[in-house]
Amino acid sequence: MAELHALTKLPRIGWVLAGVANPESVSDHCFETAIIAYILAQQIDEPVELGKVLTMALFHEVGEVRLTDLPRRSSPYVREFKRKAEREAAVDILGDLAGEVLPLLDELHELKTLEARLVEAAEELQIIAAAMYYAKENQGDISEYRRDVARYDALGIVPAALVAEVVARRLGEYLGDRPYWELGYRRENQPPAKE
Amino acid sequence: MAELHALTKLPRIGWVLAGVANPESVSDHCFETAIIAYILAQQIDEPVELGKVLTMALFHEVGEVRLTDLPRRSSPYVREFKRKAEREAAVDILGDLAGEVLPLLDELHELKTLEARLVEAAEELQIIAAAMYYAKENQGDISEYRRDVARYDALGIVPAALVAEVVARRLGEYLGDRPYWELGYRRENQPPAKE
Amino acid sequence: MAELHALTKLPRIGWVLAGVANPESVSDHCFETAIIAYILAQQIDEPVELGKVLTMALFHEVGEVRLTDLPRRSSPYVREFKRKAEREAAVDILGDLAGEVLPLLDELHELKTLEARLVEAAEELQIIAAAMYYAKENQGDISEYRRDVARYDALGIVPAALVAEVVARRLGEYLGDRPYWELGYRRENQPPAKE
Amino acid sequence: MAELHALTKLPRIGWVLAGVANPESVSDHCFETAIIAYILAQQIDEPVELGKVLTMALFHEVGEVRLTDLPRRSSPYVREFKRKAEREAAVDILGDLAGEVLPLLDELHELKTLEARLVEAAEELQIIAAAMYYAKENQGDISEYRRDVARYDALGIVPAALVAEVVARRLGEYLGDRPYWELGYRRENQPPAKE
Amino acid sequence: MAELHALTKLPRIGWVLAGVANPESVSDHCFETAIIAYILAQQIDEPVELGKVLTMALFHEVGEVRLTDLPRRSSPYVREFKRKAEREAAVDILGDLAGEVLPLLDELHELKTLEARLVEAAEELQIIAAAMYYAKENQGDISEYRRDVARYDALGIVPAALVAEVVARRLGEYLGDRPYWELGYRRENQPPAKE
Amino acid sequence: MAELHALTKLPRIGWVLAGVANPESVSDHCFETAIIAYILAQQIDEPVELGKVLTMALFHEVGEVRLTDLPRRSSPYVREFKRKAEREAAVDILGDLAGEVLPLLDELHELKTLEARLVEAAEELQIIAAAMYYAKENQGDISEYRRDVARYDALGIVPAALVAEVVARRLGEYLGDRPYWELGYRRENQPPAKE
Repeated sequence: MAELHALTKLPRIGWVLAGVANPESVSDHCFETAIIAYILAQQIDEPVELGKVLTMALFHEVGEVRLTDLPRRSSPYVREFKRKAEREAAVDILGDLAGEVLPLLDELHELKTLEARLVEAAEELQIIAAAMYYAKENQGDISEYRRDVARYDALGIVPAALVAEVVARRLGEYLGDRPYWELGYRRENQPPAKE
Repeated sequence: MAELHALTKLPRIGWVLAGVANPESVSDHCFETAIIAYILAQQIDEPVELGKVLTMALFHEVGEVRLTDLPRRSSPYVREFKRKAEREAAVDILGDLAGEVLPLLDELHELKTLEARLVEAAEELQIIAAAMYYAKENQGDISEYRRDVARYDALGIVPAALVAEVVARRLGEYLGDRPYWELGYRRENQPPAKE
Repeated sequence: MAELHALTKLPRIGWVLAGVANPESVSDHCFETAIIAYILAQQIDEPVELGKVLTMALFHEVGEVRLTDLPRRSSPYVREFKRKAEREAAVDILGDLAGEVLPLLDELHELKTLEARLVEAAEELQIIAAAMYYAKENQGDISEYRRDVARYDALGIVPAALVAEVVARRLGEYLGDRPYWELGYRRENQPPAKE
Repeated sequence: MAELHALTKLPRIGWVLAGVANPESVSDHCFETAIIAYILAQQIDEPVELGKVLTMALFHEVGEVRLTDLPRRSSPYVREFKRKAEREAAVDILGDLAGEVLPLLDELHELKTLEARLVEAAEELQIIAAAMYYAKENQGDISEYRRDVARYDALGIVPAALVAEVVARRLGEYLGDRPYWELGYRRENQPPAKE
Repeated sequence: MAELHALTKLPRIGWVLAGVANPESVSDHCFETAIIAYILAQQIDEPVELGKVLTMALFHEVGEVRLTDLPRRSSPYVREFKRKAEREAAVDILGDLAGEVLPLLDELHELKTLEARLVEAAEELQIIAAAMYYAKENQGDISEYRRDVARYDALGIVPAALVAEVVARRLGEYLGDRPYWELGYRRENQPPAKE
Repeated sequence: MAELHALTKLPRIGWVLAGVANPESVSDHCFETAIIAYILAQQIDEPVELGKVLTMALFHEVGEVRLTDLPRRSSPYVREFKRKAEREAAVDILGDLAGEVLPLLDELHELKTLEARLVEAAEELQIIAAAMYYAKENQGDISEYRRDVARYDALGIVPAALVAEVVARRLGEYLGDRPYWELGYRRENQPPAKE
């Protein structure tokens, strides 16, 4: 499991490409996803299995240990095999833990249970909140993330939707009327890339 | 709770002082502590409340949001006040979450329950494992951490003790006979500082 | 005295928290404080003991070698013991030099002599000038430092007041109408933190 | 073509995983590959089309603009798809230039012409030379690259083989008897990964 | 020729002084100059010797291996001897390659041939495009580079002039009405510095 | 005088070339030179004008604001012009302060007075001590600095000689038998470069 240490060294590539000088690591992303998932779990009325929620949040990027953080603009080229590659890598990395963790990652991927929706909502919230912090701190060109905010789907987790509204408002204030220059997404006869 | 984002920006000061050029953040430390605690929880025979374990691990440095990561060499000067200051800061930072999280942090501090000992063992394991990785990667002068390894207390968590042995051996291999130059711990009529 | 080398490695934590990617070190701060103090000393009409002024400026953060740079938001929790801790740390760090330097640091703390007021005015000027440079360079969210500029007290050092006016004007130009989002200062029934 | 600017921001991920604090960018790698290819072209007796050689060297990582630098340990999971994905990405990125550049990249991939072998030999030489410089500078754990050096294939380019011998010797001197700890390559029933 | 590796470590000092936190290296500059020169060569109607163009672009900063990247503000003090120093350094660094490369660098300096004008136009285009990217990414205070854009001379290379217009427009959008504070160019009785 | 802020951004180029990932700034060097000069001044028996010593130490690199930190390997090419260029730059940068500071810099350059010798001894001591710290922290290839240590001249300042002996011993311990590979100093018919 020593391999998981690599997550503290891998930068989140989206921020690298946005020009953030010292971007968060993949582990920073997982940590904050877990924290946000914890808070959301406290705020909703339904009973939630906390251990499951936090395990999903902590391990949801485990495949990146070997595949690294593929950016959104890679999507048209890796779409067909990425999920399979990530799952195979996860099996190899987890080793003895695969029996426990892999079913949770599959559950997260399917988005059917409350815990899965909660973690997914938390993960996407982490991304737009990070965008807001970078915009606040003048780090990189964050204008592309207006789109993420606009498309944010709380998956029925009400407090996540409320936080996302605040994030959207603040991000808008920090970005102002900054122009957005689309680079890295052009592909003929194809809709814009989505991660 | 937006304040917790600061943990992704705060460097672990011990590594800064050791000369690690791009050291892990406090959130990296918490993430890895949680991962290690999860693995230890899988490996011991006794039943463990997983949600509690991961919550303790994720929030155990919450006070550093306002107090930052005070290094070991500050110990002789802040020893009497630090715990109280951290707890007060935690109350202010956690806000509405304090009711849930603060009792867990107190439980962790007291080291009486299995969950508390497991997280404490995981945290200390994270530190000596990080030392081993930095020694492996030639980052900074890690010779001081031989002492941490030698003093490692698994608190009765058997798999933690087994991992610590491997870490000790590898750290020894990477450091070789590198000299240790004690800087920052001298105080007359006083035993060497301990965090 | 080799310990003082740590000041070149310790980042000024306020800038870290503001999101400055590669912030100045404590030694950078001391260097610029000394340079500014030198210039102010040239510009005032009264006779100034230059050796004393520069010694005060160079050594005024010596305690941070062991305590690190505690940020403003730590103030409510460390207020009562910080000064004492810094002084004790300074004694231990300075060793044989304490006899010469400590009385100067005490003199600086009391702000009674011209030299002490001059160095204090220089130090605060360094901080707001650094804020101005970071705002100029789009580094981090500097909006909080509008408050420092507004509260700047030249302590009767006239040329310091003149420079502070220029800094205030330029900082205002660079920040424009950027919103200020207070994070890290909430405490019930308590006035806003001050360092 | 503005997208190619991303290559100056993307770190070579192998060095990130090895713990190099401030690793070379993909563009650094391409620049040095071109320089080495130029030198080899001067040193061999056969006539070489220099414009072709340098174009191959400069553009050989163009697909990484969208796919980023996938590390060696991703190989078992992406092996079947990577070449196709890179080529498709290259087409989209190159746009109008694809007509000129793509045939050269295909030629490079096939390793049949002298120019292709020369650029390939230069690229691999850049990698082992970079390993040697990092070992010289104590940056990261470079012990894994002993294997690259041992397997270096000059593809018939004699001066490349001569330089590789010097690199091998110096790398050996700098690494000494440093242990190699294989992380990130375990896969059951499968030979060790190769990029 | 191992010395040329230094170009990957040397930061472009102009960006350092502008406050860019993690600026491009000299080799990044050379790489992009070569890429731009390649594209311009494809777009003009006249026949161009591609090998010569790319060699000029790749080696045009070779003297900086020993002299480093002297900033514009050094110009009044080094103007008289810089060219000679660079040429002497280039001779020593290039060694056996000097016979091939030095005449090309001289040709580039004289700006008489089409290839020389094309590379010079590409190099200046790289600088203003880098300014535009940094402005886009909020990195540093780029306001000074408005002047470079205004003075851009395409040297008769038509497609370079067209790209420069786009760069100028975008840079203007990103910088808005940001004030320009001239620092580092004052010299009495002397026209403003030019590199 | 706002220009002097640049010294906090300029890296000491010698360490950059040695492969130190996050090297000290020119202002760090000046700060430590001043601290060391202060300590030496306390330790010698002769009376020393402290204000003069510290002013010399703080301003001794003022010319680098415009000329940057030229590395040792530039010496053969700039030797004849460097001193004049630095002095002219200093005049322009210092402006109104030149009347006070320039005579001190000239005095330092001539090495005739006790204060000048003391600051020069302190500056060289800072360099070899920094080398020792980087060697201790595995930062970069410091093997070249064995030569600086061997050639260290305390200029008659006895306590400087004593410290230099300790530095020499520790540097030797940290470097062990690490090979030294001379790069960047070859010039025919010319003795090895000296700054």
